[in-house]
Amino acid sequence: MLDKTLRMNYLFDFYQSLLTQKQRKYMSLYYLDDFSLGEIAEEFDVSRQAVYDNIKRTEAMLEGYENKLKLLFKFEQRTDLMARLRTLIHQKATPEEVLSLLDTLEKLD
Amino acid sequence: MLDKTLRMNYLFDFYQSLLTQKQRKYMSLYYLDDFSLGEIAEEFDVSRQAVYDNIKRTEAMLEGYENKLKLLFKFEQRTDLMARLRTLIHQKATPEEVLSLLDTLEKLD
Repeated sequence: MLDKTLRMNYLFDFYQSLLTQKQRKYMSLYYLDDFSLGEIAEEFDVSRQAVYDNIKRTEAMLEGYENKLKLLFKFEQRTDLMARLRTLIHQKATPEEVLSLLDTLEKLD
Repeated sequence: MLDKTLRMNYLFDFYQSLLTQKQRKYMSLYYLDDFSLGEIAEEFDVSRQAVYDNIKRTEAMLEGYENKLKLLFKFEQRTDLMARLRTLIHQKATPEEVLSLLDTLEKLD
């Protein structure tokens, strides 16, 4: 399991297009630029609590999208298979072995 | 460009988890089971127009999700690269050629 910040970075990467502009802005400052809640609150002239609530809601939305679409999960599976594929090719595996792994990779979609 | 029915089948496949149960039901009867609007209307005891409006709205939602997430577009690109990869392997290409195509494949995400 990825640590929370890394996981949120990934989920944000996959699903940010489904968020509102304000959600994107807060998440990006908090998770990518490492702003504190207080700094974001000051920047947008709102309360620290408002920023906190917004970010918590957005995190729940991102997890909700991941539950439904599983883009991060599939990405991790694909990344793992790609690494195994590279190893096979470096080890000069037979075409049959490589093709069989390609079949597995294609079935992930 | 895919024909409309095939495209909707794909989009439905990728994004159905984001639809309501009713939207899923109508879309699945209309696009997968080839029911007519009239048959769906009768099944659910609603007007043909209501079914039509619901399906049109759902189609627009699916296109909206595709505009944002591009899952079908990336799937098509990946499928194309996988086919080229298979050809390379069948032709006993060098490991360098295969690895270079794998790099391209990985960059799609």
